[in-house]
Amino acid sequence: MHTTQSAKYSFKNDYSEGAHPRILEALLRSNTLQEPGYGLDKHSTNARNLIRERVGDQSAEVYFLSGGTQVNLTVISSLLKGYQSVISADTGHICTNETGAIEATGFKIHGIKTPEGKLRPEDIGPVLDTHTNIPHQIQPKLVYISNSTELGTHYSKEELYNLYTFCKAKGLILFMDGARLGHGLMATAGTLTLKDIYQYTDVFYLGGTKNGALLGEAVVFSSIELAEGFAFYMKQRGGLLAKGRILGIQFEELLGDNLYFELAQYANAMAQRIGDAFVKKGFRMLVVTRTNQIFPILSCSQIELLEKHYDFYRWQKIDENHYAIRLITSWATPVLVVDELIEKIHTL
Amino acid sequence: MHTTQSAKYSFKNDYSEGAHPRILEALLRSNTLQEPGYGLDKHSTNARNLIRERVGDQSAEVYFLSGGTQVNLTVISSLLKGYQSVISADTGHICTNETGAIEATGFKIHGIKTPEGKLRPEDIGPVLDTHTNIPHQIQPKLVYISNSTELGTHYSKEELYNLYTFCKAKGLILFMDGARLGHGLMATAGTLTLKDIYQYTDVFYLGGTKNGALLGEAVVFSSIELAEGFAFYMKQRGGLLAKGRILGIQFEELLGDNLYFELAQYANAMAQRIGDAFVKKGFRMLVVTRTNQIFPILSCSQIELLEKHYDFYRWQKIDENHYAIRLITSWATPVLVVDELIEKIHTL
Amino acid sequence: MHTTQSAKYSFKNDYSEGAHPRILEALLRSNTLQEPGYGLDKHSTNARNLIRERVGDQSAEVYFLSGGTQVNLTVISSLLKGYQSVISADTGHICTNETGAIEATGFKIHGIKTPEGKLRPEDIGPVLDTHTNIPHQIQPKLVYISNSTELGTHYSKEELYNLYTFCKAKGLILFMDGARLGHGLMATAGTLTLKDIYQYTDVFYLGGTKNGALLGEAVVFSSIELAEGFAFYMKQRGGLLAKGRILGIQFEELLGDNLYFELAQYANAMAQRIGDAFVKKGFRMLVVTRTNQIFPILSCSQIELLEKHYDFYRWQKIDENHYAIRLITSWATPVLVVDELIEKIHTL
Amino acid sequence: MHTTQSAKYSFKNDYSEGAHPRILEALLRSNTLQEPGYGLDKHSTNARNLIRERVGDQSAEVYFLSGGTQVNLTVISSLLKGYQSVISADTGHICTNETGAIEATGFKIHGIKTPEGKLRPEDIGPVLDTHTNIPHQIQPKLVYISNSTELGTHYSKEELYNLYTFCKAKGLILFMDGARLGHGLMATAGTLTLKDIYQYTDVFYLGGTKNGALLGEAVVFSSIELAEGFAFYMKQRGGLLAKGRILGIQFEELLGDNLYFELAQYANAMAQRIGDAFVKKGFRMLVVTRTNQIFPILSCSQIELLEKHYDFYRWQKIDENHYAIRLITSWATPVLVVDELIEKIHTL
Repeated sequence: MHTTQSAKYSFKNDYSEGAHPRILEALLRSNTLQEPGYGLDKHSTNARNLIRERVGDQSAEVYFLSGGTQVNLTVISSLLKGYQSVISADTGHICTNETGAIEATGFKIHGIKTPEGKLRPEDIGPVLDTHTNIPHQIQPKLVYISNSTELGTHYSKEELYNLYTFCKAKGLILFMDGARLGHGLMATAGTLTLKDIYQYTDVFYLGGTKNGALLGEAVVFSSIELAEGFAFYMKQRGGLLAKGRILGIQFEELLGDNLYFELAQYANAMAQRIGDAFVKKGFRMLVVTRTNQIFPILSCSQIELLEKHYDFYRWQKIDENHYAIRLITSWATPVLVVDELIEKIHTL
Repeated sequence: MHTTQSAKYSFKNDYSEGAHPRILEALLRSNTLQEPGYGLDKHSTNARNLIRERVGDQSAEVYFLSGGTQVNLTVISSLLKGYQSVISADTGHICTNETGAIEATGFKIHGIKTPEGKLRPEDIGPVLDTHTNIPHQIQPKLVYISNSTELGTHYSKEELYNLYTFCKAKGLILFMDGARLGHGLMATAGTLTLKDIYQYTDVFYLGGTKNGALLGEAVVFSSIELAEGFAFYMKQRGGLLAKGRILGIQFEELLGDNLYFELAQYANAMAQRIGDAFVKKGFRMLVVTRTNQIFPILSCSQIELLEKHYDFYRWQKIDENHYAIRLITSWATPVLVVDELIEKIHTL
Repeated sequence: MHTTQSAKYSFKNDYSEGAHPRILEALLRSNTLQEPGYGLDKHSTNARNLIRERVGDQSAEVYFLSGGTQVNLTVISSLLKGYQSVISADTGHICTNETGAIEATGFKIHGIKTPEGKLRPEDIGPVLDTHTNIPHQIQPKLVYISNSTELGTHYSKEELYNLYTFCKAKGLILFMDGARLGHGLMATAGTLTLKDIYQYTDVFYLGGTKNGALLGEAVVFSSIELAEGFAFYMKQRGGLLAKGRILGIQFEELLGDNLYFELAQYANAMAQRIGDAFVKKGFRMLVVTRTNQIFPILSCSQIELLEKHYDFYRWQKIDENHYAIRLITSWATPVLVVDELIEKIHTL
Repeated sequence: MHTTQSAKYSFKNDYSEGAHPRILEALLRSNTLQEPGYGLDKHSTNARNLIRERVGDQSAEVYFLSGGTQVNLTVISSLLKGYQSVISADTGHICTNETGAIEATGFKIHGIKTPEGKLRPEDIGPVLDTHTNIPHQIQPKLVYISNSTELGTHYSKEELYNLYTFCKAKGLILFMDGARLGHGLMATAGTLTLKDIYQYTDVFYLGGTKNGALLGEAVVFSSIELAEGFAFYMKQRGGLLAKGRILGIQFEELLGDNLYFELAQYANAMAQRIGDAFVKKGFRMLVVTRTNQIFPILSCSQIELLEKHYDFYRWQKIDENHYAIRLITSWATPVLVVDELIEKIHTL
């Protein structure tokens, strides 16, 4: 744990602040009323129904958990048999930044090298073809994708449809990590909808932590069969909150109107402005800016200049003198801070 | 999940409300300031220092997790080798109500029949004596106790000292589940202190969820060696919150003055009044009321009368016509509701 | 590992010698012929067919593994979902002498106190009744029994039929540990047959290690659905032998005629003679001798006299001056040694 | 399990026959004598001492298990903490052909692309450099190598020394899979000795199954600290044979004189002759033949010609019309069969 607090503005991530004020207000409003525990409260029920409406299926199975790693390990271990495995881009969060959480529950991940952190049918086929020696080889069964991805890219409707169709033809389960689903969805607004995502995955989640909530992710299974025993796994893995109301209340607030989507759209817009500034100034980008993550390639001296004013990560070494850095915006990034940053970019 | 919401006042548990108002205020106050994630924020640092002061050791290792099952599985699996096991009262939460969470991480629990949910050296000795056939038998290594227990009882200073001394003599680790530690401590106020608990256990936790927090438990290891790798395990098991600040802020508020202890004391006092009313009326108790749980034995018709006004659990069948019920009070139980209940007890 | 080699005759167990001579001859006969690995050889195929004939079902699924603990952990972990558990007598081998092998694969065992190491419906019912709090409690799903048991007792046809009927009514899987199945079967010869065992369990195994083989247990599933993925689990758990032929050859030899049953019958007969001698001499028995295990209760001085000539275990302390000892006979126990022991019993 | 038996001579693997005749004779000689179980017999003790002599350290810790996958999963899971991982060539047996056995016990493997199936310090460094984000990333801790490798290559003394030195500098454990250690050693006879392997690894094993034994691998730890609790893990994972004598007897026979090394040398010599014949005839090799595995690249029509007479694997597709096939020789491969094959190669 190397990070230390500082007075500089941080573009390190999208969870540096508390919660959107409306969420705190909702917690206050409901605070003194008694509710049953463990997600049986009326707020969780309402939030589940709001999600069912948005995905267009009253039989969608919805559960609330605290964070992304917890969702990933609980969902994956609930869906696989002991001899089955996961296919993921090698940039996938489960491959790189979850301390082996999936393997710790007993499951192998095949990390596949892909462009821009996205999986295509042609990435998956070879894994299937080289795992046919029964019973000496593990059986690949679940495809894990992130949307938006760890590189800020996202799936188009056509890409997701093709991937899902391929998975169904091969008997594979498709699971979308939606820690930043809002940002992915807003980048494709009008083409790839939440209903599409529900239709073209087997299970996905709507991330709250990185989009204005104190904590919380909403897991959505497209059939009750897939969710069999999921509540048991939530409890067993330590993910079932006693005061489940605090998850329900937040999603009720985020999805009661369009707050969830507006927050993501705002973050994307701020990122777009910053990305455009870098491009206009002539900087190369590691990946084109599409959601709320920006990956400009800067020289070390340029990075040091920026570091005087901002916190961010050096993401990837490009050559002896250059790095791609990562900047992240959020619902809470002030316009003024973005304006200032853009000015500084102009002077680099 | 059988519970359903109702308009009746619920004595089912101590997590039916949101958080103590001061906690929500603290969340509001700090909401817009950026902080590093994953427990590296200044509030978590402050809260850790407050705990270190209270246990009297600046080198105590403190970590924050969301809930009790999560703490139990993360602590136990971090402390044991693969061939070691846990000794617990058979009423222990890990034995009964955690969906096999400990076994799911690979560890056996020896559930021991004991009076009043408490373990004594004489309960543990026989387990050690019957597990000496190396390597065919598991090696008992960690003793799990709850304080207050699942039956509302608690450990005296002498009992804890004797247990700890026994554990050290036998090379055992002593772990105290403190989901209701405040209530246990307040019942022994003046004799068993938090410093004693720190001194006479190897690791314990201060429960927040059941004592006024939205969520959160503070795990305290008495040496850095015991905590080796614990942050890895927190992340791997899905327990490391991105916005760790929300745990830090709450414990900062609870422990900055005596709020934590006052809330527990209040809950205990309300329970004592209710327990006294039952006793005075001539009811037998399953267990004498010592903390915030009350276990009167009632006839079915008496239970049905009470059920018209209150929600609570039938805890244990006594005979064809009698059950012990369980009532729980909390920091949020109104005095008026208690007064009313006592009146109803008089009329039973 | 306390045991040391000695010149005294050992009644400690039924695996002190190599293999029955006919088994070694069969290994020699087939030694130079090439066979496919991993149980695809013709001997394993033949042995599978021999077992199918004996259980009267050509669709029985048969697999060969090396030893009992390996079978128990592989079968149980292949049959259960992550939130399901095992019910066993607390004397069951999986509870006491397998170093927590079942828990190490993630599954809880409910160890039930029962008379003579056998489970009855009335032992299981209460476990089901006290595990209904979904999702906070584990779901009991598999019933593990041993036949003959760790106390040398065995199931009658009626007992097994009642247990199986109960299990089916409750949706439970019934698994019989048959490490000493030959001895159990021979004790009930003419009433409980191998066909009955196949019919009234879901999966069982025929133990070879304790009945004349070098190593090897034959696992028999009564449906292909129950065996789904079992070969994967065998490989993954390290139980799939490269030279699977050595298991096939041994069961081919044991079951090609009645060798398997004759060896068990012989062991039982020797045990019966020894047991009778103790009873005739007036000794109390911990359990009546029914298979190849004998549990007489002796004074310490009597035990010391016997220990001059024989190796055996002190099984259970009865009082300050008495222990139940355990003597085990096998296919290899010489008649002369038994005669001698009986003489010594007369002089005690 | 697709393979079926055939009358053709099989070059598919080195475990198609039973055991070397001297091993069966040794089993016969010792068959009737009683021995303690679980590896406490005098043969296992002798075999352990023979190995200690050969590695030149009376304090080497030696254990016997049945097969390679069992050794790999038991050793690795006994050595790692829950948040640590394994580095292996992506051709390593644990990566490809063990049904996810290592992950099933909770541990991640980093599969590294390397030339000829061997790991070098420069392959490992980058894994360490990209896993420094504590506690979000797993901690690489154990380096797994095979010798000879899955491609028939082997480590020179200098290569092993450099790798070990690197591992020690980085705090890594070096584990050598020796399923075909005899073949690796014989290929470097006179330069890399068994003593060197003991000195320049932390733990390795001497494979019996693929070098003349019925079954059995001898695991050798270079310190008692590394082997802490290993017997518990053996039992818990189902690897502790009741009749441990059958492993001890075999290694006693293999290592009492030079049988183990002569068998491997013979297999290598036969492979060398076959490899030379392919090379002489002008065939390209996927890998130069160094131990008992031969990987010539043939056209499909040439493969079909050979398949009329022999069983072997198509190992890797080279182009539309060519495959590398894999032929394996063993202690049991008859000279006449090799002569015949060489003749057939000449006519291809």
